[in-house]
Amino acid sequence: MSLETISEQVCFGGRQGFYRHASAETKTPMRFAVFTPPQAAKGPVPVVWFLAGLTCTEENFTVKAGAQRAAAELGLMLVAPDTSPRGEGVPGDPDNAYDFGLGAGFYLDATQSPWAANYRMYSYITLELPGVIAAHFPADMQRQGISGHSMGGHGALTIALKNPQQYSSVTAFAPIVAPSQVPWGQKALGRYLGEDRAAWRAYDSVALIEDGRGVPKMLIDQGDADKFLKDQLQPERLATACKAKGIECQLRMQPGYDHSYYFIASFIDDHLRWHAAALLA
Amino acid sequence: MSLETISEQVCFGGRQGFYRHASAETKTPMRFAVFTPPQAAKGPVPVVWFLAGLTCTEENFTVKAGAQRAAAELGLMLVAPDTSPRGEGVPGDPDNAYDFGLGAGFYLDATQSPWAANYRMYSYITLELPGVIAAHFPADMQRQGISGHSMGGHGALTIALKNPQQYSSVTAFAPIVAPSQVPWGQKALGRYLGEDRAAWRAYDSVALIEDGRGVPKMLIDQGDADKFLKDQLQPERLATACKAKGIECQLRMQPGYDHSYYFIASFIDDHLRWHAAALLA
Repeated sequence: MSLETISEQVCFGGRQGFYRHASAETKTPMRFAVFTPPQAAKGPVPVVWFLAGLTCTEENFTVKAGAQRAAAELGLMLVAPDTSPRGEGVPGDPDNAYDFGLGAGFYLDATQSPWAANYRMYSYITLELPGVIAAHFPADMQRQGISGHSMGGHGALTIALKNPQQYSSVTAFAPIVAPSQVPWGQKALGRYLGEDRAAWRAYDSVALIEDGRGVPKMLIDQGDADKFLKDQLQPERLATACKAKGIECQLRMQPGYDHSYYFIASFIDDHLRWHAAALLA
Repeated sequence: MSLETISEQVCFGGRQGFYRHASAETKTPMRFAVFTPPQAAKGPVPVVWFLAGLTCTEENFTVKAGAQRAAAELGLMLVAPDTSPRGEGVPGDPDNAYDFGLGAGFYLDATQSPWAANYRMYSYITLELPGVIAAHFPADMQRQGISGHSMGGHGALTIALKNPQQYSSVTAFAPIVAPSQVPWGQKALGRYLGEDRAAWRAYDSVALIEDGRGVPKMLIDQGDADKFLKDQLQPERLATACKAKGIECQLRMQPGYDHSYYFIASFIDDHLRWHAAALLA
């Protein structure tokens, strides 16, 4: 499994790198970013995954969230994948919309043509990329947590709910919690998975919880000035589903905050400390 | 003096805004960014200016440095101006190079045609924009500090050395300390100010110190893996000049760090605390 280093830069005493590899899942080159904290010099460190939202790449979180400071303090590796396959031959949205296709893989394995060939972000994130990280970085893969923003919050929650043995902690910023019930999700799941809504439940956090999947607890931050709150995000659906199943859902409505990385930067330290509490215990 | 708000977003309990106004100095619209910390709700707060480097705008520091967290903690307003006039009729580099003209105002008042009409960043930063800030923001203009990166470090140092009564504290990241003696500076000063090198000394930190200007102390961070270190930056010239004049120059060579915002982000907290120590004393 060969890995190409695009760049590596010292940051907070650790190393911020950008890398590229040939993905068997997506059948494309895939890029990702890794922050290796200074503690890794002494041995493998826990990993926190951060899945980004619509239109993003591996760069947004890495450049804008200011997460490296706390990660360096706590001794956490940060892995930021891209949000979809890209490149020659990868089909995008037929209308070039921002909310489907390129930059909008929704962290699922598509079953419908023409998406099924490349759009395998679920397997990429949960299986293939962890293998790359384990092979090339000083990561302790027995200690992984996962977080994400918006579409990536959906990714983090669904992935943690389906793989609680793999991820010991989960948090999200302004996640899409019930894609089956909101426009972004209905468009994406309908195309990637087809119109049989039963198949959608495997990629819908609220449905997964209703169907018996669970994690002990989760931390969710949501800005109350987020323009997507009412139509696309609806975190109260998650809180209700968690309550019915006895899952501890810390849903914090943050006054005045919007959907941007200024919001994420403001609370990323809390999230990393939440992960550290689970991963370093 | 009218001010247009481009955007305002809540960040660390404060407000990150982008603004535009018509500058009398540059005869163009100018953009700038202001972070207003939460403490400003109770009364005027000290101001720290951050001057960016070649190719940058008001966005780079604001998006990439992660400075708002510490500014919110310390109660400091952050002002990030653009690095040159821009727009219709503003002449740029004849060869479209990155190191002169647009994005490369060098924080001076040009005297040579065709630059003299618009390139008045020294007066803009020291006189006009402070007036805008004083008029529109809860800033205590009796408590100002200044910092910057690369070309902006040159700006911060020269401006502080020439106006010690206006700026109570000064720091810099990887500054151009002796533009008269390095290629970036020789190109810019030669064109903006003409070939009489006597005129250059007013915009050269080392020359200003040799000529008797001073501040009590300064903090400089410099990465030792910075690719511009030997040819363009040469901070030892500043240390030598300071030593000869009894100025306390804390020059910290940071092992492994390069010229990027990952370097700035790693040490911005130290710089803001340095400013806070002077401004909140």
